[in-house]
Amino acid sequence: VNVLFASTIEPAERWLPLLERALPQDRFLQEPRGDVEVALVGIPPPGTFARLPKLKLVQSLWMGVEKLLADPELPRGVPLARMVDPGMVAAMSETVLAHVLDWHRHFWLYRQWQREKQWKHRRQFMALDRTVGILGLGELGSDAAKKFLALGFKVCGWSRRPKAMPGVHCSTDLDEVLSRSDAVVCLLPLTAQTKGILNKAALAKMRKSGCVINVARGAHLVLNDLLAALDSGHLAHAYLDVFDEEPLPADSPLWAHAGVTITPHVAALTEPRTALPRIVENVERVRRGETPLNLVDREAGY
Amino acid sequence: VNVLFASTIEPAERWLPLLERALPQDRFLQEPRGDVEVALVGIPPPGTFARLPKLKLVQSLWMGVEKLLADPELPRGVPLARMVDPGMVAAMSETVLAHVLDWHRHFWLYRQWQREKQWKHRRQFMALDRTVGILGLGELGSDAAKKFLALGFKVCGWSRRPKAMPGVHCSTDLDEVLSRSDAVVCLLPLTAQTKGILNKAALAKMRKSGCVINVARGAHLVLNDLLAALDSGHLAHAYLDVFDEEPLPADSPLWAHAGVTITPHVAALTEPRTALPRIVENVERVRRGETPLNLVDREAGY
Repeated sequence: VNVLFASTIEPAERWLPLLERALPQDRFLQEPRGDVEVALVGIPPPGTFARLPKLKLVQSLWMGVEKLLADPELPRGVPLARMVDPGMVAAMSETVLAHVLDWHRHFWLYRQWQREKQWKHRRQFMALDRTVGILGLGELGSDAAKKFLALGFKVCGWSRRPKAMPGVHCSTDLDEVLSRSDAVVCLLPLTAQTKGILNKAALAKMRKSGCVINVARGAHLVLNDLLAALDSGHLAHAYLDVFDEEPLPADSPLWAHAGVTITPHVAALTEPRTALPRIVENVERVRRGETPLNLVDREAGY
Repeated sequence: VNVLFASTIEPAERWLPLLERALPQDRFLQEPRGDVEVALVGIPPPGTFARLPKLKLVQSLWMGVEKLLADPELPRGVPLARMVDPGMVAAMSETVLAHVLDWHRHFWLYRQWQREKQWKHRRQFMALDRTVGILGLGELGSDAAKKFLALGFKVCGWSRRPKAMPGVHCSTDLDEVLSRSDAVVCLLPLTAQTKGILNKAALAKMRKSGCVINVARGAHLVLNDLLAALDSGHLAHAYLDVFDEEPLPADSPLWAHAGVTITPHVAALTEPRTALPRIVENVERVRRGETPLNLVDREAGY
């Protein structure tokens, strides 16, 4: 199978040696060619798809595919697979655990007090005093939920379709989930239905002094509504990894906002060591003429 | 049983209503009296023990008892129990998980870059790339070890006496543990043997770019050696909750050191809701003339 690696963001020099070792009988190219059957893409350079008439699979290197789906060049008849990488899932759980613990144990506040050279205590809460609300109960949300439960947090979760998870209060009623939640973790795919889902009305339903963690897409969150909820004291802190414009512009007021912790879209990166077996499996399936795994439902948008 | 609550630090108004409800047949006092049989102490006011001739048990409200043991007023013939509080153990694991994740995922560095309005990436590591070395494998260390393992970290641990824990490389050889460790978590009791254990030679044995988390006692760590290891770049960051002098003096250079995150001795506080059953059990044992639980070995110092 001829496989094109086409990403303007993922480093080819990191991926290609691993791919060539894992699939020695296949050919990996960095330029489009008529006989390419599989395209591995982060964001491909413009004009890439038009030069791939025999394409049988577009394999995303990322879990979120909303940019690919919005690309008018994406061929309609070719299956699109998203990356479900266990290393990336574990990394995401690490990140949201770190942020929830940072808020839960007031470390964001103790850092502020450190800058002021103030030795002051805040009341300690137990994990069972806190409810973590997870928006999105797919691969990411369900892994994070299990890890929060293991630390003794109460966990509730919202998903579009009804789900059931042991120990998790699952609901398709967003207001119900928000009104139970101290910490809200957004792990949703970006679709027409989830754009702007964390708006003024949603944030107002959360329990007081909680936190918002957005590690999905910038457009899930209405930034001015978040800042108002922080400035009024309704929310204690926000952890933002994703933004409408990335890199976040240097003149954004977010950088200096005391209530916001900013990370540069690093909540969870695809990990070649664990993503590789998923790519191998799908290339083998193309070779055997079988249906690839983790195909995107274009109607649902993920 | 007459029980004296004597702490200059723990708030009596928080504890007494809970104690009176849990042990309705006993009497709780705030002033020493000749007929007191159990003394609940954080740090008792000077002269307290001399006024308790019938004392049968000193029950610490805290896990660390080195200050009590150093108190010349502590009666030699009376059993001393330390507090083993499951809520406090859980809180400690939350804290050390939060700090290890903060270091592991470079959040300490991203906060620095946020202040500089810099959007930059650092390489993502997987948990299995990192070894967490836990000093002290008692109640605190063993709970933390299990939680690190559950997130996929490699874990090794040092203890004075040989121990075995599934999945943990346990050793009584400190150098061996340090030389495997990226992150070192100090959860030791403070004794003559452990004072200054984290000194220049010890820190030099750790793997490069790691972190030190001291949530035990300030005297475990030689501060100038730590600062030298941070300034040379051998260590990436330190998380310090305990200090030789507390509150940390306003003129300490630690407050403003970019490599140090300071918390005001709040890594894990005794939680009355979960500590209460342990006090109830020991008061009942005194009533029945039985040996109390969690007695301190004065020879060992914990």
